[in-house]
Amino acid sequence: MTLQNDLLLRTARGELTERVPVWMMRQAGRVLAEYRAVRERAGSFITLAKTPELAAKVTIQPVDAFDVDAAIIFSDILVVPEAMGLPYEMIESRGPVFPQTVRTTADLSRLRVANAESDLGYVLDAIRLTKKELNGRVPLIGFAGAPFTIFCYMTEGKGSKTFSVAKKLLYKDPVFAHTLLQQITDSTLAYLKAQVRAGVDLVQLFDSWAGILTPEQYRLFSLPYIKQICDALGSEIHDGVVSHAPVPVTVFAKGAFFARHEIGQLACSVVGLDWNMDPAESRELIPNKVLQGNLDPCVLYADYAQIRAEVKRMFDAFGHQHYIANLGHGIYPDTEPDKARCFVDAVKELGTAQGFSN
Amino acid sequence: MTLQNDLLLRTARGELTERVPVWMMRQAGRVLAEYRAVRERAGSFITLAKTPELAAKVTIQPVDAFDVDAAIIFSDILVVPEAMGLPYEMIESRGPVFPQTVRTTADLSRLRVANAESDLGYVLDAIRLTKKELNGRVPLIGFAGAPFTIFCYMTEGKGSKTFSVAKKLLYKDPVFAHTLLQQITDSTLAYLKAQVRAGVDLVQLFDSWAGILTPEQYRLFSLPYIKQICDALGSEIHDGVVSHAPVPVTVFAKGAFFARHEIGQLACSVVGLDWNMDPAESRELIPNKVLQGNLDPCVLYADYAQIRAEVKRMFDAFGHQHYIANLGHGIYPDTEPDKARCFVDAVKELGTAQGFSN
Repeated sequence: MTLQNDLLLRTARGELTERVPVWMMRQAGRVLAEYRAVRERAGSFITLAKTPELAAKVTIQPVDAFDVDAAIIFSDILVVPEAMGLPYEMIESRGPVFPQTVRTTADLSRLRVANAESDLGYVLDAIRLTKKELNGRVPLIGFAGAPFTIFCYMTEGKGSKTFSVAKKLLYKDPVFAHTLLQQITDSTLAYLKAQVRAGVDLVQLFDSWAGILTPEQYRLFSLPYIKQICDALGSEIHDGVVSHAPVPVTVFAKGAFFARHEIGQLACSVVGLDWNMDPAESRELIPNKVLQGNLDPCVLYADYAQIRAEVKRMFDAFGHQHYIANLGHGIYPDTEPDKARCFVDAVKELGTAQGFSN
Repeated sequence: MTLQNDLLLRTARGELTERVPVWMMRQAGRVLAEYRAVRERAGSFITLAKTPELAAKVTIQPVDAFDVDAAIIFSDILVVPEAMGLPYEMIESRGPVFPQTVRTTADLSRLRVANAESDLGYVLDAIRLTKKELNGRVPLIGFAGAPFTIFCYMTEGKGSKTFSVAKKLLYKDPVFAHTLLQQITDSTLAYLKAQVRAGVDLVQLFDSWAGILTPEQYRLFSLPYIKQICDALGSEIHDGVVSHAPVPVTVFAKGAFFARHEIGQLACSVVGLDWNMDPAESRELIPNKVLQGNLDPCVLYADYAQIRAEVKRMFDAFGHQHYIANLGHGIYPDTEPDKARCFVDAVKELGTAQGFSN
């Protein structure tokens, strides 16, 4: 099906475009009353994620409400460990919890490499249904957690400020760590390939806990696994020419400011930046990729004039090409929808490329 | 009183020294059985901090156990908001909680600028007692939270991954934010001056939540207040010459990788680095200060050979002068004391300066 709005896809592929495309991490819908209504009807987050009709519905809500240039499939990065044999629970106001954890080589026997079609069919169904219902309006983004971030949850068993249990394993039992990371990588790759077959137009890897590692540990325990996934999935852009681009891959490694140069060397098309990362410095460190980001989500608490001023600052810093406007992390649930809309509108108004000719 | 071991103090003042000094953030004592015994006897963390005899006892324990080159007074950064009229509770396994918060200009009327002698006399008593009991063995470090980090707790009311309530106030009500930050700064400065009068040999500012801000917000809401404190307290080192150095000041802004150059311009003597920050890059960004850090505390989960190897890597990267060996953040409570001791021993063995002559 031909996309009516393929702006984000063209930008992600490295093309020059007439305007900066915009979407909002991670599920902008959660600020919407219509999302909360569906969420309540579903009874739980996990039920919502596992019911394709409802997942498709809340995936499309932000496109209707904010007129963003892409949708991102409603799901969670923790569906992968669940598909590997480690179920999780989502506990209100506490976040995800794994009743069982994986911390030894013996624990690995409880796990399998995920079979995307059988174990994650509900996500693939949601993707197919969303594509059908979007009817070509905007591209659909698929996603997964980066292997190290998934490793953090599977070993720690819950969110943490330090993830010191997960990190301890890297130092104490690197063989176990690499074995588990490879199993997660194999599962994630199978899952992302299935997402592509089901119809997603782009994929994004979220390395949400990249920032807890030393640069050295990041090079050992995170980057090689992201590289495997990019090599298998990614487009390749050399000297600005796209050699093949079945589905552009975005790598977003929150907090990994120290690894920007290396991330820029991966076979991905887009690199996501968090709000700590200076745009000009990031352009220098990552010269040949499309950049995505990086408005502090808290700016959406400010008034309309401030939001517009911050969007202008982003364009002054990033320019208007090879750039996808986004937040620097997920939108906060108590953001007023009108402020999110103001952000999108400001990007559209101020993001028109000067002197663009097709 | 003359210090028998003034190595850390001389290094902090910018002098060349015969060995790299070492201590461990933040209270190494909490990994010790003898600390836990005193903590249990006290009944609560806050009682322990408020009883000078016990605070002095646990302050000295790590010097006995690990033979570090400095002690740091046992206390908490949240004693300052308490002294300003906002008491906190320390809830087991949850951390600090403020039953009341400060979020509006009207709330400010409940606060006062702390009177260090009357409101924080128990810390000053603990410092005087510790100095007496240390009897000149090693220098004593005093400390406080940086104003922005204290602002986070006073407005948010508890720890948070995002501190989005605190950050929201920066965008929505900057006048309120600056007023509160100034009141915290005035209180902190009075408190640190009183610590110096009571006998501390160095002071350290902990900006624990620096990393949640954008570079721009950090320049607006954190750095100017740290600068006020450094200007009032700090030593000044120009071209390697110490012009006056009553008490060296260390600034440790966790996560503020983007502000290293600016922090290096402050009138402080030492800049602390977390484990994300590359030593060589940090030396370039902060050329004229002593650096402190930055071992990942999780390295202390590794075996002895690995700990020694990581210490050697630190010296390869930082060199042996203008450097204080430390962790990149606080030690984790479940660290084995022998591993902490191994770290200190490795620094002492491998940290001898080549070709040093006095």
